[in-house]
Amino acid sequence: MAPLIDIHAHIVPAHFPVAPVACCHHWPSMAHGPGDTADVMIGGRVFRALDNRSWNLPRRAVDMDTQGVAMQALSPMPELLSYWIEADDALELARYVNGTIATMVAAQPSRFAGLGMVPLQDPMLAANELSRIKADGLHGIEIGSNILGISPGDAQFDPFYAEAERLGMAIFVHALHPTFNNRLVGPKPLDAFLGFPTDVGLAAASFITGRTLEKFPGLRVGFSHGGGTFSAILPRLQKGWQIAPPLTQAFTSPTDTARRMFYDNIVFDPSLLRHMVVTFGATQIFAGSDYPYSAGQDFPGAPFDALGLSPETLNLLRSDNARRFLGLDSSRPTRI
Amino acid sequence: MAPLIDIHAHIVPAHFPVAPVACCHHWPSMAHGPGDTADVMIGGRVFRALDNRSWNLPRRAVDMDTQGVAMQALSPMPELLSYWIEADDALELARYVNGTIATMVAAQPSRFAGLGMVPLQDPMLAANELSRIKADGLHGIEIGSNILGISPGDAQFDPFYAEAERLGMAIFVHALHPTFNNRLVGPKPLDAFLGFPTDVGLAAASFITGRTLEKFPGLRVGFSHGGGTFSAILPRLQKGWQIAPPLTQAFTSPTDTARRMFYDNIVFDPSLLRHMVVTFGATQIFAGSDYPYSAGQDFPGAPFDALGLSPETLNLLRSDNARRFLGLDSSRPTRI
Repeated sequence: MAPLIDIHAHIVPAHFPVAPVACCHHWPSMAHGPGDTADVMIGGRVFRALDNRSWNLPRRAVDMDTQGVAMQALSPMPELLSYWIEADDALELARYVNGTIATMVAAQPSRFAGLGMVPLQDPMLAANELSRIKADGLHGIEIGSNILGISPGDAQFDPFYAEAERLGMAIFVHALHPTFNNRLVGPKPLDAFLGFPTDVGLAAASFITGRTLEKFPGLRVGFSHGGGTFSAILPRLQKGWQIAPPLTQAFTSPTDTARRMFYDNIVFDPSLLRHMVVTFGATQIFAGSDYPYSAGQDFPGAPFDALGLSPETLNLLRSDNARRFLGLDSSRPTRI
Repeated sequence: MAPLIDIHAHIVPAHFPVAPVACCHHWPSMAHGPGDTADVMIGGRVFRALDNRSWNLPRRAVDMDTQGVAMQALSPMPELLSYWIEADDALELARYVNGTIATMVAAQPSRFAGLGMVPLQDPMLAANELSRIKADGLHGIEIGSNILGISPGDAQFDPFYAEAERLGMAIFVHALHPTFNNRLVGPKPLDAFLGFPTDVGLAAASFITGRTLEKFPGLRVGFSHGGGTFSAILPRLQKGWQIAPPLTQAFTSPTDTARRMFYDNIVFDPSLLRHMVVTFGATQIFAGSDYPYSAGQDFPGAPFDALGLSPETLNLLRSDNARRFLGLDSSRPTRI
């Protein structure tokens, strides 16, 4: 079997620099506790209780061995994306976090790839940072499923995508701050379990209806949590595109475009994953663990094993699709 | 094969009474045109161009023969639900529309069932109207996927559900006025094609997380458009329920509850419908056409035929589940 690549795994640096002078209530800091634990503090409260899996590379490598993971793409804990602070401050934070990831990747380049962060609240500033991030050895950028309430397929982000396409940087869209919490009835964690998949689904749709992939055909875009609700929305969007002239005229076939985007396998259900393979294609799905968080899956290759696929297809899902998404072997033709 | 029952089919009365004196910009009216066409006017503009399929029962019966539909459940065009006008005015409109549906059902009770409307912006007023609607021969109520922005699983609607349960009235939840339009990138019709399924998905989840089915275990609730995104959200909600104590403590197993609710088959995709059958169970899905609108399906039984199911299962999907939902033969035990 091909080595398993895990595209959805998060890090938090062990320490943060002090906040810039002019900044800011939402600059993160770490409050280290007993053993190897720490609380990451954001906005004056404990955002999340962590342990050293978030920053300790040797421990992570041991866990990856246990999980059967050959390589992880490291991305920031999404709350670090910090679209809600001044763009200049967010850039300073991004450079620090990206540097942390770059150091991790450089330490074991055969086991780690890197997905950095940019201050996407200022698309030009974000675009201008990409060359440096690429030069530091990262493979792409993690962005939120919305940026201050705006879907990522909105045209205001085009300068960023243009530069990402030019540099061959992958875009990993991760659920973040769902914008319709007033529609969730019940306790706070529903945010992560109902809000996340819904928000990612709207984000994925926006790349189609906003024509992002038409404008930047070389852009590689992947989505967390199996694209969330997108696999359930897409057939109806396709129907609308077929029967409503304003949609037919506005963008190309949604199902065709959907089959050019990527999706992780964190959906917790073999029937849903099977539907995704049918809908998006076996060339467009890769593994994810959500390491080290409890809402993840400890054995990110296991969902693929349950589908009864051919060894060739299994290798696409375990490895080749992730390599293609990250651009690890860009000279190699796509196998379909 | 068992006779096909279509649970999702809409009517608009041929005429509306004049607006009450104190009311109101959003009272509907009909502007009849050439042939058998009419524009339904709401809020000073053409809401939708219609033809006599919306009000002419003989024509509808002919179309049903063509579609292989033995019985339709008639429900109001959702925009008529009028949660956005004064509750007393909405009640007056509801009585008129419900009377129209009751007359249609009484004319051909072997071919039509009825789903009425209530002014759910005032839950007690809505609850108090149910006896009259049942006495008029209707089988349930169509409600919106949100009521002025509030998900229908919110506890403020409990008095209505309590009375619906007591009377054995079915609840058909239909997509209406998505609340996150700022997240849709592109032309207006995306409202119906991205917004609708997302809104219904959030509505369905709210019946679980709001404990509606725990409080009213006899309530029969069905969802339009296959429950929208709900079949893609549910596995992650179940994961959250398993690992997050605030969720475990707040409500019972989401998948168990989901398998007590009903869903139509308007999803335009065999793979997604197959996933729904696995997820919700073959006892919980029924046919829908969305007649007479273009975003519907002309042969509402066809999606079932494509699944390669046993004749017994096919009969559940074609007929028995719909009868159970509508309460057409309540003395009969459920076949599973």
